[in-house]
Amino acid sequence: MPQSYSLQQVADFIGASVIGSAEVAISGLASLQDAGPGQLAFLARDKFRDQLLSSQASAIIMTAASAENYTGSALVMDNPYLGYARASALFDDTPAATVGVHATAVVAESATVHSKAVVGPNAVLGERVVVGANTVVGAGCYIGDDTVLGESCYLFANVSIYHNVSLGDRVRIHSGAVIGADGFGFAPGPDGWTKIFQLGGVRIGDDVEIGACTTIDRGALDDTVIENGVIIDNHVMIAHNVRVGENTAMAACSAAAGSTTIGKNCIFAGRSGVVGHVEVGDGVQVNSNTTLTKSVSESGVYASGVPCSQVSEWRKNAARFNQLDSMHRRLSALEKQLKED
Amino acid sequence: MPQSYSLQQVADFIGASVIGSAEVAISGLASLQDAGPGQLAFLARDKFRDQLLSSQASAIIMTAASAENYTGSALVMDNPYLGYARASALFDDTPAATVGVHATAVVAESATVHSKAVVGPNAVLGERVVVGANTVVGAGCYIGDDTVLGESCYLFANVSIYHNVSLGDRVRIHSGAVIGADGFGFAPGPDGWTKIFQLGGVRIGDDVEIGACTTIDRGALDDTVIENGVIIDNHVMIAHNVRVGENTAMAACSAAAGSTTIGKNCIFAGRSGVVGHVEVGDGVQVNSNTTLTKSVSESGVYASGVPCSQVSEWRKNAARFNQLDSMHRRLSALEKQLKED
Amino acid sequence: MPQSYSLQQVADFIGASVIGSAEVAISGLASLQDAGPGQLAFLARDKFRDQLLSSQASAIIMTAASAENYTGSALVMDNPYLGYARASALFDDTPAATVGVHATAVVAESATVHSKAVVGPNAVLGERVVVGANTVVGAGCYIGDDTVLGESCYLFANVSIYHNVSLGDRVRIHSGAVIGADGFGFAPGPDGWTKIFQLGGVRIGDDVEIGACTTIDRGALDDTVIENGVIIDNHVMIAHNVRVGENTAMAACSAAAGSTTIGKNCIFAGRSGVVGHVEVGDGVQVNSNTTLTKSVSESGVYASGVPCSQVSEWRKNAARFNQLDSMHRRLSALEKQLKED
Repeated sequence: MPQSYSLQQVADFIGASVIGSAEVAISGLASLQDAGPGQLAFLARDKFRDQLLSSQASAIIMTAASAENYTGSALVMDNPYLGYARASALFDDTPAATVGVHATAVVAESATVHSKAVVGPNAVLGERVVVGANTVVGAGCYIGDDTVLGESCYLFANVSIYHNVSLGDRVRIHSGAVIGADGFGFAPGPDGWTKIFQLGGVRIGDDVEIGACTTIDRGALDDTVIENGVIIDNHVMIAHNVRVGENTAMAACSAAAGSTTIGKNCIFAGRSGVVGHVEVGDGVQVNSNTTLTKSVSESGVYASGVPCSQVSEWRKNAARFNQLDSMHRRLSALEKQLKED
Repeated sequence: MPQSYSLQQVADFIGASVIGSAEVAISGLASLQDAGPGQLAFLARDKFRDQLLSSQASAIIMTAASAENYTGSALVMDNPYLGYARASALFDDTPAATVGVHATAVVAESATVHSKAVVGPNAVLGERVVVGANTVVGAGCYIGDDTVLGESCYLFANVSIYHNVSLGDRVRIHSGAVIGADGFGFAPGPDGWTKIFQLGGVRIGDDVEIGACTTIDRGALDDTVIENGVIIDNHVMIAHNVRVGENTAMAACSAAAGSTTIGKNCIFAGRSGVVGHVEVGDGVQVNSNTTLTKSVSESGVYASGVPCSQVSEWRKNAARFNQLDSMHRRLSALEKQLKED
Repeated sequence: MPQSYSLQQVADFIGASVIGSAEVAISGLASLQDAGPGQLAFLARDKFRDQLLSSQASAIIMTAASAENYTGSALVMDNPYLGYARASALFDDTPAATVGVHATAVVAESATVHSKAVVGPNAVLGERVVVGANTVVGAGCYIGDDTVLGESCYLFANVSIYHNVSLGDRVRIHSGAVIGADGFGFAPGPDGWTKIFQLGGVRIGDDVEIGACTTIDRGALDDTVIENGVIIDNHVMIAHNVRVGENTAMAACSAAAGSTTIGKNCIFAGRSGVVGHVEVGDGVQVNSNTTLTKSVSESGVYASGVPCSQVSEWRKNAARFNQLDSMHRRLSALEKQLKED
C-alpha cells in the first residue's frame, strides 16, 4: 500500500499553491496521459495545455497561466517540472535498509560506523574507514582503507571504493561504480611500459550522484575532484586528476581525460567528452557524440560529427570526405581562373 | 574428459541429415582450419568450399550444395551456421552449479527460492524476491526487494539487480551488469539539480541475454521494457523508459537514450546509439559509431561518421569540414557566374 | 607517516646519478610547482627548465642537459619521466593485504592457494582454481572453475573472472572488470537468435594491467589472448577471439571487435576502436574517437572524425555533409565547362 498525502501536504512539500480541493488524496505520480484517480501529474510546458482536458489525474502541477481556465484541482508554481521532481521524493520506493551493521559484513576494528548508518550484507570496510550518520553501504560494497563517507550517502549494492577517497554528504552511488581505481599512467621505456603508481586520491563533494558502472580514477600525485552538486550518469569515465565543477552534469558514456578541469554548470551529453590537459569554462555544453579537443573559456554549445543517413547515401558522401582538401583546391583554382578570364 | 556424441546424435539435435558414418564420435567443435579428429566443423558459406579438402575435421556441417562432391562425413542442412550454433549447446562447459542455497547466501525470509534453483555463495536476496526453477543466481549477486526471476535464468557472479524488476524465463545476465539503477532524471532549478526519484521498474522478457557491465535503468514513472528474444552485448546503456522490441540485437557499447522506443528485429552495431524520445521502426539497422538522431519508421541501414585515414591526410581534410558551408556558397557563386557569362 | 628514502637510495632504485646532497631525505613525489621540502619532482622536458628555479622540491629528476646550470640537488638520467615512474613504486600506498585466506572467503576444496597468497573477505574461488605466490584476490572477487592466477597478481575488490581463464604473473586487475564472459555470438534463424555457446577461454600474459569495468570476453572456439606487457584502461571492450600484441596500450573506452588481431606496441587512444576480423600491424596508433575499419599493416597514426565547433557553425557545415557528393559532381561539371569554354 503506497503512502498517501493530501494535496495540501504535497503543495507544502514542493512549494506550490493549491487550486481546488486541498484534501484530495495523492498516492502517486504519473504522466498526464496515464494518470488515474489518486495520481498527480504535471504540465511541463504550457503548449501541451490541451492535454489537461483529457487527463484523469486527481491533480496537476502547472503554471498560473495554464491554470487560468482549468477547473480541476491544481498545484500552481512557476516551474512545474521542478515541482514534479520535488514531489517524486515523496513517492520514492527505494527500500529502506535496516539500521546497523549486518552480521555478514566485514568491518575493520579501526573503522568508525555511525550508530544510525547501515552496512549491508557482505559489505567490506577497511582500516580507519568512517561511515557517517544515515549513510547506507549496500550489500557487497567494498570500502578501502582510510576512506571517509559523509552523512546520508547511499551506496547501492556492489559499489567499489578504493583507499583514501572522501565523500561529502548526500552522495548517491549506483551499483558497479568504481571510485579510486588507478589512473592510467605509464611511462614508455626500453622494456615496454613502466607503471606510474597513483599516489593521489579522490575527493567528492556534497549532493553528488554517480551512475552505475561509472569509474572515477584516483589522481597521480594530487586528487581527482568532483565538486558539490555534480550529477553523473552510467558508464562515465573520469580520468585521474580531472576536476569537475559544481553542478556540472555528465550524461551516460561521457568521458573526461586526464588532468582536465571542467567548470561549473557544464552539461556533457551522452557519449560526449573532453581530451586531457585542457580547461573548460563555466556553462559549456557539449553535444552528444562530441569531444572537445581544446580548452574553451566561452560558455556556449559545442557540437561535432556528421548527420546519419541511409547507408547508400552516406557511403557516397563519406567517400568524398577524403577528397575535401582536393575539392577545396579545385574550387580555389576555378575561382582564380574565372577571375583571370 | 569432454562429453562425446555420435554424429547421428548431433544431427538429431541440430536438425541435419547425416552423410557418411553416423557413428563417428564427436567430442568438440572447431573451425575448418583448426579442427582435428573427433571435432565437428562447419562451412558457413559455399564460397569457402575449397577449405573442405584440407580440413581434418571428423565431420562438417554444410549445405546440400556444398556436400555434392564431398566424400567425408557431413551434416547437411540449409543453414550450417545455425547448425553450429545449435551444436555449441552440446559442448557448453559453463560449470554446473550445485542446486540449493549456499550457506553464505543471505536470503530474506519472505523470499521464495524454487527447490531446483541455485543461489550461490555470498549472494543477497531481498524481501519477497522470487527465484524460479532451474535459475542460477551466481556468487555475489544482489537481488533487490520484490524482484522476480523466472525459470532457467542464469545470473553470473556479481550481477546487481535492484528492487521491482522482473525477468522472464531463460534470461542470461553476465557479471557486472546492473539492472534497475536510477534513470538519469534531474530538474534544473535555482539551486542546481533536483533529483527526480525513479518510480518505475524494469521488465525483461524471455530468452534475453545481457552482457557484462551493461546497465538497464529503471523507469521514471513507467517501466523500462526489454521484450522477448533481445540480445544485448557488454557495456550497453539502456536508459529509463526505453522499450527494446523483440529479437533486437544491441552490440557492445551501444546506447539508447531515455524514453525511446525501438522496434523488433533491429540491429545496433558496436558503439551505435539512438537519442531519446524517438521511435525506431522494426528491422532498422544502425551501423557502428552511428547515432540515430530522429525517429525512423522505414527499415533500412543507417550510417554516419567519416572514414579513418593516416593522420596527415585526415588533418588536411578535417580542416576543410569547417569550411564546408563556405565552399558550398563559393560553388554556387561560381555556377551563377558561369551561367551569367 | 610515509616511508622516507635518501636521495642516493632513490637514485639507485631508478637508475640515476645524484648531483648535490645524496643524503637529503625524500618522502614523496610531487609536480615541480607543488613540491615542497622532502619531495622529489621531475622535469619531463628540457623546455620547462625555467620552472626549476621556482620549485621548492628537495630534489628534481632531470637530464644532464637540464642539470648543467642547476645548483640544487638532482637525479640525472636520460629519461626523467621514466625515472618518475620508477620512483612512484617507492611511494605506492596501496594497502598491503594480510597474507592468507580470509575466514569469509569461499574456496573450493580442489583449489590451490599458495601459502603467500591473499584471498580477501567474501571472495569466491571455484573448483581447481590456482592462486600463485604473492597474488592478492581482493574482497568480493569471483574466480571460476579451472582458472589459474600466476604470481604477484593483484585483483582489486569485486573483479569477476569466469572459468578456464589463465593469468600470467604480475597481472593487475581493477574493480568491476569482467574476464571471460561469453562472447556475443548468436546465429539468426527463423525463430530469432540462437546462442552460440562460447567454448574458448581467455589467456592473459605477464605484466598486464586491466582497468576498472573493462571486459575481456572468452573465445567462441579458441581463446581470446592478451599478450605480455599490454596495458588496458577502464571501460575497454575486448571481444571474443581478439589477440592483443605485446606492450600494446588501450586507453579508456576503446574497443576491439571480434576475431581481430592487434600487433605489438600499438596505441589505441580514448574511445578508439577497431572492427572485427581484421589485422592491425605492429606500432599502429589510433587516435581518439577513431575506429579502424580495415586491416592496416603499416605502422602510422590513424585518425577520423570532424573537429568540434560552436553549434551554430557546426550545424551549417554538417548540413552540407549530405551534399558532399553532389558538391563534388557540381565541381567536376564546372571544371569541364570551363575547360570546354
